[in-house]
Amino acid sequence: MRFLHTADWHIGRKLYGYELIREQEDAFAQISRIAVQEKVDAVVVAGDLYDRALPSEDAVKQLNKMIVELNLKLKKPILAISGNHDSAVRLNTGHEWFKETQYFLNTTVEEAMTPIEFPDTQFFLLPYFQLFQARNFFEDESLNDLTTVIEKIICQMKKRFNSEKKHVLVAHFFAAGSTKTESETKIEVGGLNAVPVDILDDFDYVALGHLHDVNALHNPKVKYSGSPVKFSVSEAKTTKGVWIVDTEPFQIEFVPLKPLNDIILLEDNYENLISPRIYTGMKESDFVAITLKDNAVIPNVMNNLREFYPKIISLTRKNQVLEIPKDEADVFELDPMKLLGSFFEDMTGEKMTKLQEKWATDSLEYVNGGEMK
Amino acid sequence: MRFLHTADWHIGRKLYGYELIREQEDAFAQISRIAVQEKVDAVVVAGDLYDRALPSEDAVKQLNKMIVELNLKLKKPILAISGNHDSAVRLNTGHEWFKETQYFLNTTVEEAMTPIEFPDTQFFLLPYFQLFQARNFFEDESLNDLTTVIEKIICQMKKRFNSEKKHVLVAHFFAAGSTKTESETKIEVGGLNAVPVDILDDFDYVALGHLHDVNALHNPKVKYSGSPVKFSVSEAKTTKGVWIVDTEPFQIEFVPLKPLNDIILLEDNYENLISPRIYTGMKESDFVAITLKDNAVIPNVMNNLREFYPKIISLTRKNQVLEIPKDEADVFELDPMKLLGSFFEDMTGEKMTKLQEKWATDSLEYVNGGEMK
Repeated sequence: MRFLHTADWHIGRKLYGYELIREQEDAFAQISRIAVQEKVDAVVVAGDLYDRALPSEDAVKQLNKMIVELNLKLKKPILAISGNHDSAVRLNTGHEWFKETQYFLNTTVEEAMTPIEFPDTQFFLLPYFQLFQARNFFEDESLNDLTTVIEKIICQMKKRFNSEKKHVLVAHFFAAGSTKTESETKIEVGGLNAVPVDILDDFDYVALGHLHDVNALHNPKVKYSGSPVKFSVSEAKTTKGVWIVDTEPFQIEFVPLKPLNDIILLEDNYENLISPRIYTGMKESDFVAITLKDNAVIPNVMNNLREFYPKIISLTRKNQVLEIPKDEADVFELDPMKLLGSFFEDMTGEKMTKLQEKWATDSLEYVNGGEMK
Repeated sequence: MRFLHTADWHIGRKLYGYELIREQEDAFAQISRIAVQEKVDAVVVAGDLYDRALPSEDAVKQLNKMIVELNLKLKKPILAISGNHDSAVRLNTGHEWFKETQYFLNTTVEEAMTPIEFPDTQFFLLPYFQLFQARNFFEDESLNDLTTVIEKIICQMKKRFNSEKKHVLVAHFFAAGSTKTESETKIEVGGLNAVPVDILDDFDYVALGHLHDVNALHNPKVKYSGSPVKFSVSEAKTTKGVWIVDTEPFQIEFVPLKPLNDIILLEDNYENLISPRIYTGMKESDFVAITLKDNAVIPNVMNNLREFYPKIISLTRKNQVLEIPKDEADVFELDPMKLLGSFFEDMTGEKMTKLQEKWATDSLEYVNGGEMK
């Protein structure tokens, strides 16, 4: 059979304050078109359908519309799991009815043990779970390590393997060897220890969600699809897309998605950035992350740049590196005025004037208990 | 046909801080049993399934379980609408699938115009709505009055009337002539102007939700079912239950529900309340609302009473009436010491002693800028 593998839709997510509804709807429309064009037999969504456990009403409306479109209008079976950003309980609402139209949505470890049967393939849908849930399921309080738990789960799944079929695992965790991008929050990746990829060997394909970059893991049959939309500046140069997977004979292909509005990295001097040579070539609706090469202070720089780049999502300075002594304790031993002088120089590229030094010294004396002169 | 009419489940609601999960589950179990025993063809739930727009995960789990039980296990068609406490958008999730098993859930004015057809009866499910939603639906910005809107809606519904069938309206609003109990918040009743009952005459039965007391409205064919559980002290003496409605020949019967834990009103002196004669006859799990007839100050009264009545939900004093001059402005003209003296007397039944008066006068002088003596 042939299926489409996507994940990490994060409906409701914002990009540095900007709504991503239109970008997500456009990416979804592309995914739907690909599903139809590629004549896939099912669509896999490997977790994090929503961006948060309590999605807004708009996000609920948006996701509901997508699922209705894909499953009821286009008649595509859906194989989905809850991710760490979803509330399993909330997402679960109605799942007893969804099966009737082959929308399979698993939110508990228990459900993962029963494969979803297609003529030549068995799907095991393992949602994101917390260790205490695995402990409850196995009735084993000693379970304290994600890898051990996943091994136990796979062991149970294998008892249900039909040797005449192919076996696909859909899951949402941090697999070893992967790197991470900014848009997964650290605590989540930290909360889930890395799972070594080799314990997943019994499956013909593993459709993962959790990391947002398709290149986070390089393994011929264990894949992150990545998110369909860029969610952080660190993803600016990555290509978004979906996997089209054939189980027999095994073959996979990455089909890219074209961003409705892209994230553009600009690194230049202020003077160049406000010259038509650069900004006229830009699409106004794109998100722009600017790195200024200037050292000088530029008053009101953000507002000025916004006139030319309306959707600036970050503004940093290339040379914004404060040399800090290696041993942090040293900082406290440095003379405060020397520290300030060095900071000022790093920021502006110039030394403080005598008058500036006097202001600083007076202020310092004042906060240290002296009188303002 | 025969159907059961209930409403205002308010899953997730608390009673003065006490969870009502067990009470609500028990009431639901009774409703299910009645539905089976009475062999009803459908169950009507006239809004406020949840207590709040953002129900807790526990509440979501609880309601989902009830609906699955009633619709999928007992195979009863459900006719439900969203009430003012529900988030129409959230409750709506999955409704496209629910129809397949005759779980009809309307959350928009538009949906209300299409009747749900049973062999001999048409049901029009009109959810709670806000005026702007009706304005959008009718594309008429001048609509500013609920009664006019309901008349327009009924006018549209009547175009769909099949004269060979009976017609039932399911709705969630404040119908005129009704009284209200404490457990509907005032703003909701106030936000919805009363709808005169006579404009509902075209229906053979109107199954209403919103007011929690079955006796809130006395009309032979326009009925509130009331909530299945008591939600406030003011409902202590009401009987909870459901309506069993036959459409042909028309006949209705109120079937009471037995509270798992009731609200008991106790009005007595402290001495009597802590004597075995009273408390030994009580069920420990009942909720108790106490009115103390004593005038004297009783130190630590709540904690002491809790030893005998563990679930006190209110404690008031019968004689706790502070005589306030009719015109509020007068209060500010009264001498503060006279006001305090009168308050003290109302609270304790005694006059202040000279020493108490001195403490009060000193304190007053101090807060008015004088020195503490």
